[in-house]
Amino acid sequence: MTGSLIIAGLGPGADHLVTPEVTEALAQATDIVGYIPYVARVAERPGLTLHPSDNRVEIDRSRHALEMAADGRQVVVVSSGDPGVFAMAAAVFEAVEAGPDHWRDLDIRVAPGITAMLAAAARAGAPLGHDFCAINLSDNLKPWALIERRLRLAAEADFAMAFYNPRSKSRPEGFARTLDVLNDACGDARPVIFARAVSTPEEAIRVVPLPDARPEMADMRTMVIVGSSTTRIITRDGAPFVYTPRSVA
Amino acid sequence: MTGSLIIAGLGPGADHLVTPEVTEALAQATDIVGYIPYVARVAERPGLTLHPSDNRVEIDRSRHALEMAADGRQVVVVSSGDPGVFAMAAAVFEAVEAGPDHWRDLDIRVAPGITAMLAAAARAGAPLGHDFCAINLSDNLKPWALIERRLRLAAEADFAMAFYNPRSKSRPEGFARTLDVLNDACGDARPVIFARAVSTPEEAIRVVPLPDARPEMADMRTMVIVGSSTTRIITRDGAPFVYTPRSVA
Repeated sequence: MTGSLIIAGLGPGADHLVTPEVTEALAQATDIVGYIPYVARVAERPGLTLHPSDNRVEIDRSRHALEMAADGRQVVVVSSGDPGVFAMAAAVFEAVEAGPDHWRDLDIRVAPGITAMLAAAARAGAPLGHDFCAINLSDNLKPWALIERRLRLAAEADFAMAFYNPRSKSRPEGFARTLDVLNDACGDARPVIFARAVSTPEEAIRVVPLPDARPEMADMRTMVIVGSSTTRIITRDGAPFVYTPRSVA
Repeated sequence: MTGSLIIAGLGPGADHLVTPEVTEALAQATDIVGYIPYVARVAERPGLTLHPSDNRVEIDRSRHALEMAADGRQVVVVSSGDPGVFAMAAAVFEAVEAGPDHWRDLDIRVAPGITAMLAAAARAGAPLGHDFCAINLSDNLKPWALIERRLRLAAEADFAMAFYNPRSKSRPEGFARTLDVLNDACGDARPVIFARAVSTPEEAIRVVPLPDARPEMADMRTMVIVGSSTTRIITRDGAPFVYTPRSVA
């Protein structure tokens, strides 16, 4: 039997945000590969082997998945959110490029999902309704100087900004530096959205003006969205709506 | 009965990319509001009124939807892709802010969807696997000078770039200018992905080096993704994989 490898996005957490395409891929799979908490979201059944692995072994995990697909298995690599956004798809293609030639001819597909920034934006209103950028704040994979450079250029371009991985246990100081750079580069009180564990029972959304944002408002499960200079807040009973108008005069 | 307004993302086209949350919202709706081709994707049924409207009447459409929700109807505003990305969510919140105070207290929710850039990226590989930005190239809603400025700053930040609305009938020259600016600012042969009508029967994906990109490769149904300086192509039989590695040294 010809093997296949689907890199599938499970969305931010809730089952009602998983696409039918991904549900079908999981139902057809013989093997599920991924980080422990994501594999735990897949129900066990006869004929399905789960291969949970630890964090930070993305290339090993990708090679294992590719080997199984080459052996004729129907493999699904699971990511949270969208696999193409700071998740497993790039890791799999890195492994393909570095691997044996025959891996290039495998049936490899990416099944998109609801990525964290879009789930978070939806819960707050429409903060990404105008031009925006997405930056991974982890400096495991790039130098801090590049992150700072991108933050300053993004502020100069007046993008709204979505930050993935704002605060890791191993490098808690990075997000404090991010807030310092943004306060310096933006110099205003634009809204910052801290969206934790969106679509799960632990969901918590908090909106503060940039000068009031504090590093401890984010943890590893938090998505941070910083508005552009034009982002607006609509006050109301309960949580405000935050949105960025479509137009700039 | 208390009314509600859900701004729902239908994804790029295929039914298997519509989330269960959106499917459920459509099933519960009394009224569907949106641009003609998106409303046409919703099946008629007893008790459901369809309100299709023309392009470029987003604020009128939003007001109509808000009025019906205030009257106790269960209204769904449909967008293609994700409603928060260059789509209807920002328009609805603009109407809320400018409208009567009682609109602020309505039950308004955004149901995210698979936005075009993520569907296109998935079909090409993982071109958005590192930091990136999303820019609406339509200059109906902002001056061309701002678009050009953002393109140059995005190139300087070495973001991959996803372009929505690259080429409209009314302003065909804008995308030619975009390509000129990018060639000038990037000065290399990074890959450009033209992804037309992703997930529909008319889907067509084309990958060319930046200097070979031509305005006529994009139309109104095309999403354009330009790689960063690190984006790579994996050649193979058939369409290549395009991906941006997670790391920068």
